[in-house]
Amino acid sequence: MPKPPMPADVLEMLAGPNPAVITALRTDGQPVSVATWYVMDGDRIQVNMDERRKRLDYLRADPRVSVTVLDEKGWHTHVSVQGRVVEISADEGLVGIDRIASHYTGRTFGDREHARVNAFIEVDRWHAWGGRFNNE
Amino acid sequence: MPKPPMPADVLEMLAGPNPAVITALRTDGQPVSVATWYVMDGDRIQVNMDERRKRLDYLRADPRVSVTVLDEKGWHTHVSVQGRVVEISADEGLVGIDRIASHYTGRTFGDREHARVNAFIEVDRWHAWGGRFNNE
Repeated sequence: MPKPPMPADVLEMLAGPNPAVITALRTDGQPVSVATWYVMDGDRIQVNMDERRKRLDYLRADPRVSVTVLDEKGWHTHVSVQGRVVEISADEGLVGIDRIASHYTGRTFGDREHARVNAFIEVDRWHAWGGRFNNE
Repeated sequence: MPKPPMPADVLEMLAGPNPAVITALRTDGQPVSVATWYVMDGDRIQVNMDERRKRLDYLRADPRVSVTVLDEKGWHTHVSVQGRVVEISADEGLVGIDRIASHYTGRTFGDREHARVNAFIEVDRWHAWGGRFNNE
């Protein structure tokens, strides 16, 4: 699998409001995956969680993650990255989740009551698949 | 997260030709995810790989996987399972991949040249999310 930087056509695909799945590691090493929203923050992947999420404990104990992004136009095209959470920070004013919710839904986030955190993922390896990338 | 058996509404959702992502573990424990086809084999999840896939080495070294299935009707509804590959077997006559390809595309699998394997995943934990499951 190639290392970064990711080429322009891959970053362009990742810029869309695509379905995605993130996998973290339970403390015993068992992988745990879940559907997620994300946005790109330069060449990092930004996700956002309710701070009560068990997944946050997993990421703090072991920052290694994998993210697979399915092209919103058809999941035959997909990009997977392996990386690490390099930053976890409080989502002050819910700026992060509002940016992400707006990206997907065109609206700010509904739940204003619960504290949230941003997590930023640095990509170590990536793989792109599908006709869009001319590698089928 | 609940343990099996999975209830009827979850199994019904899983029975569709849904986008899915499977995560295996690299030998150093790094999670590696990729989009995948699957079918249900009773309450087990069946996937199928070209036998040259690196992922197969990972599964043989550590059978722990996570699978997230996004509802084909809208990925707001999703089911994630944690489990283990409990059986890997040669796909004689490509019966397995033909069943899976037909499920998704209505046609048998195109590539008849390369040997493939079936892998069967036993579910240890599952989680279903979305209005369909009345738990939002």
